[in-house]
Amino acid sequence: MRQRIVTLSRTYRFSAAHYYHDPGLDDAANARLFGKCANQHGHGHNYRCEVRLRGVPAVETGMLFDLRTLDRIVHETVLERLDHRNLNAEVEAFATQQPTCENLAGFVWETLAPQLPPGLLDAVRLYETDDLWAEYRG
Amino acid sequence: MRQRIVTLSRTYRFSAAHYYHDPGLDDAANARLFGKCANQHGHGHNYRCEVRLRGVPAVETGMLFDLRTLDRIVHETVLERLDHRNLNAEVEAFATQQPTCENLAGFVWETLAPQLPPGLLDAVRLYETDDLWAEYRG
Amino acid sequence: MRQRIVTLSRTYRFSAAHYYHDPGLDDAANARLFGKCANQHGHGHNYRCEVRLRGVPAVETGMLFDLRTLDRIVHETVLERLDHRNLNAEVEAFATQQPTCENLAGFVWETLAPQLPPGLLDAVRLYETDDLWAEYRG
Amino acid sequence: MRQRIVTLSRTYRFSAAHYYHDPGLDDAANARLFGKCANQHGHGHNYRCEVRLRGVPAVETGMLFDLRTLDRIVHETVLERLDHRNLNAEVEAFATQQPTCENLAGFVWETLAPQLPPGLLDAVRLYETDDLWAEYRG
Amino acid sequence: MRQRIVTLSRTYRFSAAHYYHDPGLDDAANARLFGKCANQHGHGHNYRCEVRLRGVPAVETGMLFDLRTLDRIVHETVLERLDHRNLNAEVEAFATQQPTCENLAGFVWETLAPQLPPGLLDAVRLYETDDLWAEYRG
Amino acid sequence: MRQRIVTLSRTYRFSAAHYYHDPGLDDAANARLFGKCANQHGHGHNYRCEVRLRGVPAVETGMLFDLRTLDRIVHETVLERLDHRNLNAEVEAFATQQPTCENLAGFVWETLAPQLPPGLLDAVRLYETDDLWAEYRG
Repeated sequence: MRQRIVTLSRTYRFSAAHYYHDPGLDDAANARLFGKCANQHGHGHNYRCEVRLRGVPAVETGMLFDLRTLDRIVHETVLERLDHRNLNAEVEAFATQQPTCENLAGFVWETLAPQLPPGLLDAVRLYETDDLWAEYRG
Repeated sequence: MRQRIVTLSRTYRFSAAHYYHDPGLDDAANARLFGKCANQHGHGHNYRCEVRLRGVPAVETGMLFDLRTLDRIVHETVLERLDHRNLNAEVEAFATQQPTCENLAGFVWETLAPQLPPGLLDAVRLYETDDLWAEYRG
Repeated sequence: MRQRIVTLSRTYRFSAAHYYHDPGLDDAANARLFGKCANQHGHGHNYRCEVRLRGVPAVETGMLFDLRTLDRIVHETVLERLDHRNLNAEVEAFATQQPTCENLAGFVWETLAPQLPPGLLDAVRLYETDDLWAEYRG
Repeated sequence: MRQRIVTLSRTYRFSAAHYYHDPGLDDAANARLFGKCANQHGHGHNYRCEVRLRGVPAVETGMLFDLRTLDRIVHETVLERLDHRNLNAEVEAFATQQPTCENLAGFVWETLAPQLPPGLLDAVRLYETDDLWAEYRG
Repeated sequence: MRQRIVTLSRTYRFSAAHYYHDPGLDDAANARLFGKCANQHGHGHNYRCEVRLRGVPAVETGMLFDLRTLDRIVHETVLERLDHRNLNAEVEAFATQQPTCENLAGFVWETLAPQLPPGLLDAVRLYETDDLWAEYRG
Repeated sequence: MRQRIVTLSRTYRFSAAHYYHDPGLDDAANARLFGKCANQHGHGHNYRCEVRLRGVPAVETGMLFDLRTLDRIVHETVLERLDHRNLNAEVEAFATQQPTCENLAGFVWETLAPQLPPGLLDAVRLYETDDLWAEYRG
């Protein structure tokens, strides 16, 4: 049996609140720039996060990585910080960048990559709704 | 062609933030009662709302109700008040009841029913996530 | 083991074209009444049809009805007439009624019910899109 | 605020193997009766189970039932017995009835109902695939 | 915060009718070549179109591109021409090429790309049904 | 009209049973390694398999490949061997490798590629559940 390079994806979910706000602009300018998303009371989403790994599965297990270990790492380092949170108020990374799905994909990548064997993480795809997602590949 | 009694359902979507809080309890008791949902920074969801009508379609149009009219009514009376809102802070009805999907289904029913011909509204089903919904039938 | 009354649902799919047109009205009035759906060149949908049966499963098989038989009946009597068809031009029933999902649900019921054991058919739910369906129960 | 009777549904998932076999019939007759499902090596499904409750939400919580408690009950009494199991070989109830989705819905109802407050359980809907489900209401 | 290259995808929907026909062939040959899709009365689909952009999000907004602007461009240049249309009869591009999902993906790319900043459009994925899609990347 | 290189994806489904077992380990070690999946009675899944092709559509048909031919090849060479099967007991390839979704994606690729024109097959993506998939690209 030949060695195969395979991509594996596992989906995680979290629910969070967010809003968009540029502190250098007044309220009217924020509303023009961000529309309904500028409402500082916040709104929220059921986010889905696809974590994609890439490499050669182990011959004995046929697996790229142990999924129970992956689940534990994602829960401890990502979901604990994002699930049932207000991203603006409670996640330090979003004090200095907008909590868009573009930036969330980057945040999850930068959080996860150091926890995984070098080169294993292939992509992070972050769904804000079923119809809007961002993907970052490091 | 015989007259048929038909149910018709149309789905609407909104994104909102919420949390659960009983003002008669202290923070520890709220946390015990509501778990992660007690976080007063709020979290959020992509809600889906099925509006179900029931009756006999008009012979000329084959339709139970004009969907453009239904869309307008739902947008003006329901989505305007819920979409991109913090339900606790911005929707008066949830100052005195928890913004659970049970109560949201009731709120949507009570908001919509007076706007529609008597007897037309059959049910409101409110999805908080793909896996959790509440339905109220007046 | 007690006898249980169970509902069983099986989903079928077809793709068809349709439009709405009232021959007693001129083009402008049809456009006002039906909007984009009045375009007589037609448009189309991926329809889904849930056929629901209700009754007591046979003890030996644990089944309400043989699904291969149901599939054959639905294909021969319903899908043959609707799939890859223009409903207005090719399905006689829609020469005298608009091909709305309300009327399609009625058409499928009236087509299927005589082919099945009396009392077995419980409901027909017809999805025109993921967000719009009609249900008819005879 | 008036008291409302609400239906609440929560979805659970399990993966299991099964096959259909009538011990009173020979292999050829089983194959005729059950087709591909007669293969005694077994095949399997990703099942989804909707547990529906019905009643009046508590005023303080806005909830029909505590979801963490419901999750615990469903995991301990239903999912522990069905998830990652061969239904024919490992679930006693299916030694004497076929593990069809009709019978699985009945099994889940009869397992769950005694664990919940009387009258709370409204329906169990069991999806064998996205396109085939059975529902039992006690 | 480092600059990240991100892919962003937004989904749009339209409903249209189509059929396949080669004018150089007679009806029997068209039927052999295209099967049910050769029916010139037309049939139809609920199409979904994923528009993917790629680049570096703006630091101030955390966004790759303003979504309200993208929505307006897609509606004006793509959806206006395809939604509730008969692709064969009403879209000039499909007078000289079959309206397959392969060609639709190409059509959407070629329509959208000149409306967007150079290099921003990354891919167009066109779903004809949930189970069949084509993707074109310019 | 310019020549376009397009990717086309078509989804197939099968239901199968499997389990994970390393014959060089005792039962306790298998249970530690594979968790619930080590249960040799087997469990199962509704698998989905995306077959992706890549190339230039024919000008006359606008199609990359005849879908009826693709369906026939996939049914005869892949689905016949996997659908309603116990992968461990009935598929020779999985006597010497674990039937993980990583290995299933590889198996489908290696089975399909020789049946198709050289270079046409672009990727095989194998979903074990909605939330877990593996992709192999030869």
